[in-house]
Amino acid sequence: MQTKNIAIVGSGLVGSLLALYLRKRKYQVTVFDRRPDIRTVEFSGRSINLAMSVRGWKTLEKIGIADEVQKLAIPMDKRTIHVTGEPVYHQYYGKKGEAISSIPRGVLNRRMITLAEEAGVVFRFNEKVWDINLPEAKIYTGETEKSEWTEYQYDMIFGCDGAFSRVRHKMQRRSRFDYSQKFLDTGYKELGIPPNEDGTHRLDKHSLHIWPRGKFMLIALPNLDGSFTCTLFMPHEGENSFEELTNDDEVIKFWENHFPDTINLMPTLLNDFKNNPTSALVTMKCYPWTYWDKVALVGDSAHAIVPFYGQGMNAGFEDISILDEIIDAHGDSDWQQIFEAYQESRKPNADAIAELSYRNFIEMSSKTADPDFILRKKIEKQFSEKYPDQWLPLYSRVTFSHRPYAEALKIGDKQAAIMDQVMQMDNIENIWNTNEVEHYILELLEEKYYIKK
Amino acid sequence: MQTKNIAIVGSGLVGSLLALYLRKRKYQVTVFDRRPDIRTVEFSGRSINLAMSVRGWKTLEKIGIADEVQKLAIPMDKRTIHVTGEPVYHQYYGKKGEAISSIPRGVLNRRMITLAEEAGVVFRFNEKVWDINLPEAKIYTGETEKSEWTEYQYDMIFGCDGAFSRVRHKMQRRSRFDYSQKFLDTGYKELGIPPNEDGTHRLDKHSLHIWPRGKFMLIALPNLDGSFTCTLFMPHEGENSFEELTNDDEVIKFWENHFPDTINLMPTLLNDFKNNPTSALVTMKCYPWTYWDKVALVGDSAHAIVPFYGQGMNAGFEDISILDEIIDAHGDSDWQQIFEAYQESRKPNADAIAELSYRNFIEMSSKTADPDFILRKKIEKQFSEKYPDQWLPLYSRVTFSHRPYAEALKIGDKQAAIMDQVMQMDNIENIWNTNEVEHYILELLEEKYYIKK
Repeated sequence: MQTKNIAIVGSGLVGSLLALYLRKRKYQVTVFDRRPDIRTVEFSGRSINLAMSVRGWKTLEKIGIADEVQKLAIPMDKRTIHVTGEPVYHQYYGKKGEAISSIPRGVLNRRMITLAEEAGVVFRFNEKVWDINLPEAKIYTGETEKSEWTEYQYDMIFGCDGAFSRVRHKMQRRSRFDYSQKFLDTGYKELGIPPNEDGTHRLDKHSLHIWPRGKFMLIALPNLDGSFTCTLFMPHEGENSFEELTNDDEVIKFWENHFPDTINLMPTLLNDFKNNPTSALVTMKCYPWTYWDKVALVGDSAHAIVPFYGQGMNAGFEDISILDEIIDAHGDSDWQQIFEAYQESRKPNADAIAELSYRNFIEMSSKTADPDFILRKKIEKQFSEKYPDQWLPLYSRVTFSHRPYAEALKIGDKQAAIMDQVMQMDNIENIWNTNEVEHYILELLEEKYYIKK
Repeated sequence: MQTKNIAIVGSGLVGSLLALYLRKRKYQVTVFDRRPDIRTVEFSGRSINLAMSVRGWKTLEKIGIADEVQKLAIPMDKRTIHVTGEPVYHQYYGKKGEAISSIPRGVLNRRMITLAEEAGVVFRFNEKVWDINLPEAKIYTGETEKSEWTEYQYDMIFGCDGAFSRVRHKMQRRSRFDYSQKFLDTGYKELGIPPNEDGTHRLDKHSLHIWPRGKFMLIALPNLDGSFTCTLFMPHEGENSFEELTNDDEVIKFWENHFPDTINLMPTLLNDFKNNPTSALVTMKCYPWTYWDKVALVGDSAHAIVPFYGQGMNAGFEDISILDEIIDAHGDSDWQQIFEAYQESRKPNADAIAELSYRNFIEMSSKTADPDFILRKKIEKQFSEKYPDQWLPLYSRVTFSHRPYAEALKIGDKQAAIMDQVMQMDNIENIWNTNEVEHYILELLEEKYYIKK
């Protein structure tokens, strides 16, 4: 086996996990990050809690750290929907025993850096990468863009430096590099629900809580210490927007109007609202993801998506396990072939999860409070339990399976077309669990839409 | 009136024409360009001849230089289609007297720089802009990105620096800036047809000549000196691609196969093919186009399109005349308002002409040789001549009218749907000029699609 000297730009979740994978192949691995060591600083208060699902777990298992990470996670087997003046409602995510796992980003990232360091990965924090020589795999770092730079020579460079990747930025200036960044009108802000005095959670801790309000919503994900990390998603401008909430009075009034049942849960609301930044949400797509056998983008640097399917980290981790499989298949020698197989395999799936994530805002913020949607989910769930080979619900295919995202998007659209027809049956709200509905779905699957699982 | 000190980045067609317009308002205008003065150097051999149409002419007329530019132009009132083994076929662009004008880019640009200079615009050639301070309208120039920079302070900065704009590049790094660049698989190469020995043209000089071959095509536009500027559009890779033509023998063989009637016209083919670069074609979209009252993008820097509708320069010039109208309407004081009105007015039209241009490759390279398409055009032409208030053909609305591009796209799609139905009439090739067809079109217009011109 050939020894290689590899640089990774970015010490986030994908960067540190990829470092572990490459280190396992006995490569020399150095990780550069322009920021300080996250283990030495307060985390930034602009994160959305992670929801780890099977794609993420598989990547951790393969490198032997799933058990370790499991200790940081709380399983959530359902959405709990809060509509003002109505009892809370549970929507289970999957079958009994299936759950996604809430993990604070900072906690996980710190742990992964330590694990990588223990495996022999070298981290160079506070070192800013300003330029890359793509064909020669050289990295240039320095204090500022105009200061003296240090040159490093590697065999390969991986860009794991996120949605605003410097490595990609260099690739983007080449001809025939497709690129798009599109911002949502919706932004977000991190808020918090502290633990009870006895350290217990103030809400059901095995739920992802949603307060769906149409064009905006509040969500809360549990942490091990009894707290919840909340995120308010809301338009930047217009009616019910961040722009409108400029002082404490406006925030309180808005909360009393829209989230009255949370006021007692959120004693730090006004401070959180003031101190935490309002952040933007972007979908970023690009292609190609690799340059010769020298440079590859992995994770958000190749495909940044909006967070509404909880798949950002999972998709990034899946990049790593698929890349690892491809290295095994190709025999760790022709990296141009490895990189081409990697990008060809991942690009359609990255585009698909981008689309699914974009669409899911509407599902979370509006449909979860809609009786029609709830009925629809009930019908789907009952049918898929009886005919698991013929109907894996979209959410389950994305979250609890390893089937490609592109397949999930395609089959999900066909299932949606079938459910549109089912929901138009006379008196569906009363006959939903009858043989008639079941046979109609079977017929539609046979006739027009049948897809083998 | 307030005096303003204005910088324009880019001395191309849009930059130099905008300079003239702003100079007319008595502003101090300085134009920066990283390249040398185009009047002092050989032009680059990678340009496609311009096809000026009424949007471009209007902008030149308004500033009083249309007559001057007219002297550089050759009117083309038709496409001339060359299919091997068949007689050439003329497709007239519009009504009698309507024509687009062929102008070599370099010739026009040189003339416009001189006109701007004579009006008092200052040009700073060979001065590279590396950075912009957007809120303070400062420009930083220097030898290299890392050398000592000179700082200039202006009241406003206009980015007219093309598809790969440095000004936009700075705006792009801000949050909530939407951006996309998408390259075609098709590239292009400039070639030439020299004049006859007596200085006359070797082909009809009032035509845009097309050799449509499906996935690739050759076009030729006349120049005043008796020559034609030709462009070969062809995929970068795959069957019949630039990748395949790596030596003289391959080029000759390809030409004998696909363009045998041009071999005698193109004595410099092999040299041209070798010496001129193969260039890429990109569609670039972004938004917003302006920053406060300080910075605005105009022309390709805001909306680069592929060349197949001959509207790139026309759209850029229309930006200028619309901006000029908005300044008049707003009274030359609140530039934030002016910039907002400008971008809101132009963005939907830029997106529309991008779409129309993208689609037109197929029209030029395939459909122009298709009997169905030719018949369709004949029917449309006859109907629109008889009912000019009810049917302005898409090409005419884009090329010979000042109606917004967005309207052209929308109405064009409705007209296409009508023509799809007309072309399905029994025996249409024989009844195309009957009352029956005419009445059917009128009926379809009334029933479903009627749009007032």
